[in-house]
Amino acid sequence: MVQRIRRRAGRPRGLVLGIGDDCAIYRPSAEEDLLVTTDFVIEDVHFRRTTHRAEDVGWKALARGLSDIAAMGGTPRFCLVSLAVAPWADERWIDGFYRGLLKLARRTRTELAGGDLAHAGKTVCDIVAAGWVPKGKALRRDGAKTGDAIYVSGVLGGSALGLATGRGRAWRRHLRPEPRLALGRILRQSFRPTAAMDISDGLLIDLHRLCLASKCAAELDGDVPVFAGAAIEQALHGGEDYELLFTLPAQVRRPRRISGVPITRIGSMCRGEAGSITIAGERRLPLGYDHFRKP
Amino acid sequence: MVQRIRRRAGRPRGLVLGIGDDCAIYRPSAEEDLLVTTDFVIEDVHFRRTTHRAEDVGWKALARGLSDIAAMGGTPRFCLVSLAVAPWADERWIDGFYRGLLKLARRTRTELAGGDLAHAGKTVCDIVAAGWVPKGKALRRDGAKTGDAIYVSGVLGGSALGLATGRGRAWRRHLRPEPRLALGRILRQSFRPTAAMDISDGLLIDLHRLCLASKCAAELDGDVPVFAGAAIEQALHGGEDYELLFTLPAQVRRPRRISGVPITRIGSMCRGEAGSITIAGERRLPLGYDHFRKP
Repeated sequence: MVQRIRRRAGRPRGLVLGIGDDCAIYRPSAEEDLLVTTDFVIEDVHFRRTTHRAEDVGWKALARGLSDIAAMGGTPRFCLVSLAVAPWADERWIDGFYRGLLKLARRTRTELAGGDLAHAGKTVCDIVAAGWVPKGKALRRDGAKTGDAIYVSGVLGGSALGLATGRGRAWRRHLRPEPRLALGRILRQSFRPTAAMDISDGLLIDLHRLCLASKCAAELDGDVPVFAGAAIEQALHGGEDYELLFTLPAQVRRPRRISGVPITRIGSMCRGEAGSITIAGERRLPLGYDHFRKP
Repeated sequence: MVQRIRRRAGRPRGLVLGIGDDCAIYRPSAEEDLLVTTDFVIEDVHFRRTTHRAEDVGWKALARGLSDIAAMGGTPRFCLVSLAVAPWADERWIDGFYRGLLKLARRTRTELAGGDLAHAGKTVCDIVAAGWVPKGKALRRDGAKTGDAIYVSGVLGGSALGLATGRGRAWRRHLRPEPRLALGRILRQSFRPTAAMDISDGLLIDLHRLCLASKCAAELDGDVPVFAGAAIEQALHGGEDYELLFTLPAQVRRPRRISGVPITRIGSMCRGEAGSITIAGERRLPLGYDHFRKP
């Protein structure tokens, strides 16, 4: 199985050594900072075997990691994939999983460099994504200042709507999120956001985290862009949209679209209790899909 | 919970940014190759909640990753820990898990730089360990040549014996494996092994993998060092000993101990079908604990 995955992963690019030894070996250049992130995709938490095809699970596993790289303005380099398969997952399923994952990997020039394979009661994937930014240029979430304008990319709530209905454009959006890599890079190079992160658990809870890190409060006074057909609550609290959330000094002008993705101003950072969010003057709890809240 | 882990992880050393953002940021030096590896520790596969304490699970999770770094002659830098906890695992268990992990992390100067937290049906940990070697100096498993002598560190079968008996020195060895980091570094600096890897799944299956990578066969003609009280089969096929397996050109002299660990010559690389292993002239199947073999 390892041999087959290895053949399909192709030639390592930027890697001294990929799949097949104790570690992957990566030779960084002197001008780069390395970004590393890790994310779970777990059966019955992030996907269901009855509704999500193997290809979709593999795609999403990598997309989750790449979305974190995008949020820091980085360019992906390689990934490692740890996959523990449940008894129901046969070789065909595993093949499909890697097919979906490698499709996104090729499109984003992310090398599959290694991982681990095991059996488990339920299928669990943990992905490591690594990328780079020029030294000191990573977009962090702790630099937003009072007065900065708050922006989101794209439209929100599509993934939550798709999960609820299981069909149409919203379902496809839930299954195949597109990490905003080009947008993240352009933001870093041309707009220098004071803070940025991806929206993976829901707008309000992720904005709450950005506010906590930046020791600010947020006031939402603009229209939140909602996916066609989704409810406002799905846009505010639904997870897995993988859009970018970022702040710019108030005077910075920005286009309506960057790299084909609409950019919407939704509010501004303000004084107040760190992490607190108000919408039209009313305090809102940062609900969202928090994997670590007991169900 | 993330806040608590973060406080306990302490100050990042060698890291630009640790826990709390989308990615960890690491600034490598111009003279280094980065080593990255990932390993699962899964409930009812690698540990049982009834017999393994939380501290032991945390320790072993990191030890598995560090053993891979050791096998390449590397020095650890940081780790990321993805932990999905079963409903039975309360905060006390999670605290214990991190206590055990951070004890080994402090001892080996490995920074906890991030990770993921989630819920799952059974507890699953996936650890990412990252370390470094001077450029081009990593010990790989694909360089062994016909005629090279084969060595193992320490004694084998202790972990398998411990798992069978659940008590005494063998059980402690199973619970708290010591990654051979000092040995790996000294081997790289002073003895230049032609190939090296760690023994995590069993001597024969891991030697088989080394032989496959190096396109050689192996003949075992020396005494395999067996843990006191263990059977020879436990030493040949038992997993989780985390000793080092390496090859040196026949003429290289080496001490009986390196960094306090006994070094034993067990055979030599020879011509023959790649991956095949003979003991005293008899062909042996590379049995071992292969997580990917259907149970």
